[in-house]
Amino acid sequence: MGVNTNQLLSSCCLLFLAGFSSGGKILVFPEDGSHWLNMQFIMKELHVRGHNLTVVRSSRSLYIQASSPLYTVITVNITETAVDAEFFTILLQRSVALRKMSPIVRFFEQQRDVATMLQIFHNGILSLISTMLDDSTLMKELQDSKFDLMLTDPAFPAGVLLGNYLHLPMVYNVRWLNTGDAHMAIAPSPPSHVPMYNSMFSDKMDFLQRTENFLRYVVSCLQEQFVIIPIYDKLLKKHFPSDSDLLTMQRSADIWLMRVDFILEFPRPGMPNVVYMGGFQCRPSQPISAELEDFMQSSGEHGVVVVSQGLTVTALPKEITEAIASAFAKLPQKVIWRYMGERPLSLGNNTMLLDWLPQNDLLGHPKTRVFVSHGGTNGIYEAIYHGVPVLLLPLLFDQFDNAVRLEVRGAARVVDVGTITSKEFLEALQDVIRNPSYRNTMQKLSKLHRDWPLSPLDSAIFWIEYVLRHKGARHLSSEANNLPWYSYQCLDVIVFLIAIISTALWASIILCRLLCCRSNKKQKKD
Amino acid sequence: MGVNTNQLLSSCCLLFLAGFSSGGKILVFPEDGSHWLNMQFIMKELHVRGHNLTVVRSSRSLYIQASSPLYTVITVNITETAVDAEFFTILLQRSVALRKMSPIVRFFEQQRDVATMLQIFHNGILSLISTMLDDSTLMKELQDSKFDLMLTDPAFPAGVLLGNYLHLPMVYNVRWLNTGDAHMAIAPSPPSHVPMYNSMFSDKMDFLQRTENFLRYVVSCLQEQFVIIPIYDKLLKKHFPSDSDLLTMQRSADIWLMRVDFILEFPRPGMPNVVYMGGFQCRPSQPISAELEDFMQSSGEHGVVVVSQGLTVTALPKEITEAIASAFAKLPQKVIWRYMGERPLSLGNNTMLLDWLPQNDLLGHPKTRVFVSHGGTNGIYEAIYHGVPVLLLPLLFDQFDNAVRLEVRGAARVVDVGTITSKEFLEALQDVIRNPSYRNTMQKLSKLHRDWPLSPLDSAIFWIEYVLRHKGARHLSSEANNLPWYSYQCLDVIVFLIAIISTALWASIILCRLLCCRSNKKQKKD
Repeated sequence: MGVNTNQLLSSCCLLFLAGFSSGGKILVFPEDGSHWLNMQFIMKELHVRGHNLTVVRSSRSLYIQASSPLYTVITVNITETAVDAEFFTILLQRSVALRKMSPIVRFFEQQRDVATMLQIFHNGILSLISTMLDDSTLMKELQDSKFDLMLTDPAFPAGVLLGNYLHLPMVYNVRWLNTGDAHMAIAPSPPSHVPMYNSMFSDKMDFLQRTENFLRYVVSCLQEQFVIIPIYDKLLKKHFPSDSDLLTMQRSADIWLMRVDFILEFPRPGMPNVVYMGGFQCRPSQPISAELEDFMQSSGEHGVVVVSQGLTVTALPKEITEAIASAFAKLPQKVIWRYMGERPLSLGNNTMLLDWLPQNDLLGHPKTRVFVSHGGTNGIYEAIYHGVPVLLLPLLFDQFDNAVRLEVRGAARVVDVGTITSKEFLEALQDVIRNPSYRNTMQKLSKLHRDWPLSPLDSAIFWIEYVLRHKGARHLSSEANNLPWYSYQCLDVIVFLIAIISTALWASIILCRLLCCRSNKKQKKD
Repeated sequence: MGVNTNQLLSSCCLLFLAGFSSGGKILVFPEDGSHWLNMQFIMKELHVRGHNLTVVRSSRSLYIQASSPLYTVITVNITETAVDAEFFTILLQRSVALRKMSPIVRFFEQQRDVATMLQIFHNGILSLISTMLDDSTLMKELQDSKFDLMLTDPAFPAGVLLGNYLHLPMVYNVRWLNTGDAHMAIAPSPPSHVPMYNSMFSDKMDFLQRTENFLRYVVSCLQEQFVIIPIYDKLLKKHFPSDSDLLTMQRSADIWLMRVDFILEFPRPGMPNVVYMGGFQCRPSQPISAELEDFMQSSGEHGVVVVSQGLTVTALPKEITEAIASAFAKLPQKVIWRYMGERPLSLGNNTMLLDWLPQNDLLGHPKTRVFVSHGGTNGIYEAIYHGVPVLLLPLLFDQFDNAVRLEVRGAARVVDVGTITSKEFLEALQDVIRNPSYRNTMQKLSKLHRDWPLSPLDSAIFWIEYVLRHKGARHLSSEANNLPWYSYQCLDVIVFLIAIISTALWASIILCRLLCCRSNKKQKKD
């Protein structure tokens, strides 16, 4: 019953199956940033298995390369975009400010921020997809290309809209959609135990937390209905049949490859066409460069702290940088810090700054003692895979929720970006390094995470090819996707039954009164 | 991307992994009847993989053998049981009578029947489990045996109670629980698109059907609460801690191996610890006896009709038997009929009666044209596996619902047991034989059903051994299992919010009135 056997076997399976695969024509519409890193893992595997890939990107894309030997690129020319590196710096400053507010003020400010951010992102996407749909030559070309499948990350709906326009079977590589967890779009998500995006609750909530979570649920539905949907109204009217609506299109994907593993995520309802592939990007570590290896070895018995702050944040605020740097300087460990920005004044001799680091290979290195991370999903799954305990400093987006998940499992400590001090950071860091419970828990999680009948990546590839083989997977799509929300929740039936019962009661009362009156009158007459 | 390749590979996987397995001590508490057939498939595989099996059975069991070379048997002596062959004959007569009633009368009669049947079955189970728990020597022996796992079919809760009593990690081999689909116990089951047990609705319901389905949902919750739970009250008080309740115990299994495949079942919400293994018993057909083979070949180009009425019903009512037999006599096909009872008077020369038949091997035989079945789950999955179209004559239990599922997919015709005539039966049978759409649809379903990354049986074995390896799978159990139903549905939160909003409104109205009064008085004074 060996875990490694399973993995070995799974790789064998894929190699074995590879010989039988015949290439499909796949149109890929990725998202930018860390989402693009994710998509590349799947694309590389699809390329190896002989599939023909075409990628759609915006000319203002921050990370998606304009050309590649692995795929054909369609670049859509966009004149401007609000989402650049500076935008993320502003977001980060705002995030730090939010963490300093009282919970109630923060709740309302957060909702306002989310609404604003949704508008900025979606208007950018609208501009991209409008440009495409308005370009009849491009559309004709895409239609004539006769793709077999659309593979897209539906965090923003450009790919969803294009896939529906071209009537392609669709597979999602997905984690977020509209205002939160993509599950919310297709699976029941009772707010009694499914914590909402940004709530920072676990699945075990007290009454007041459940109340707040319920309110967050309602607000998120309203934001979807009144912020996101209206943005695409005109576009839908112009390019799609009259009864089209965005939510139905979003729900129409054949397979949802969800970047979730319940080793991290709280257990929650799913659907038959949801395939879990959390941690699909994880792999055994490879040897690192001689220079890095020397640095790792120079740490001796103390080992190394690996630090990364993610792809989107290029520079942390100065006060945070200095607090962290001075804490690192006090450690007996060596530190490798992926860092872009001005060199901190309090940096110690034990710390090496790099503008890129082989994160997976370092996390799998035997000298690594702890991973200091912003809490991005990719990094967290890599830490789980390699069984390395984590100190988390969440900065943006889902990082706060990811942090809660790892913290309640006892595999991480979390430091608040709003109130961070060097002393507190050092104490937390030393705790994670010295207290064996964090490492032991992470090793247990790692063992569970690596124990599968088919690896998450193999599973993803299987289901993509399943959709190719059968030209869709409609039999796995729930009829719920076609019901309006009030019918889905049986509200129409409940109202109808209440009306019937009330009418029956009311009629009985009237009848009783009439009978009473008559008998009274009769008595009086007698 | 070959389907057969996957199957071949999956078998290889299991053989390969077998070498690495170390035996676990597994306590098996099966259900009787066709459920026992299911359990045996898993047990055989577990035995091959070196696990040590102990089976608990009642001395009045109809099918579970008292000894076997594959497992140790614990027989619990029970003095009497209401559930015998005659009981099923009475059930069948009642079922035929119900089919003749108007829908509204049938609804109420059905609910009364279900309540009565639940009481009969559960009182039998109560007697079995009470005898066991009262037997302190047996309990000591079981505790000392230090089992690693309880594998049980929780349709009735004897295994669940024993597993909880012994504090064993638990894996369910499950389809039904309490008053219907086992999903209802752990996964959201919105009655807007999840048809209830015995409703005979598909997942696409009109408003009145949704209303009826909602009522069935409510009635089934009430039956669970007021019929089933009270039966075990005394037992729980006597043998379990004071805060124990049956539903929580039922929900506490680590893994639910669900005998469901969405090739047949309507897509519906699931949970992370639910593993689907519908059709796990299906396998390629083996050569049949020379006598049977001769009979099959003698059918020539017309082929053969294979007929089975399941395990529980030993004899169909005479009028049905004669209607069917006379229809068969008019066919150019040969007929093989699994039949127990008096030889029908109108039986034709083309029909062979057998009291047992190698169903799977016959369904996989190239001469088989159609399968006439009562609609039991095992038979239906075997028909799907082999791509044989079906004529269904549902008699009892879930067979009516199974029939609807296959009928709406266009892979079967259904004949009503309440109104059956020879003419109608013949017409339906000829339609299924002659109209190629039934066979084509079945072949498509078969192709989809056989296309998996890991076979359903291998998947079941993987998850049983997963629980053995990790001594449970608590991280896959939802926090929802610990919430009372009103909290799960957020009803407490909604009432609280309505109370707050009403109070705020009421306070504002009072305040406004006070202010108005004051200003009026002031005006009058002025």
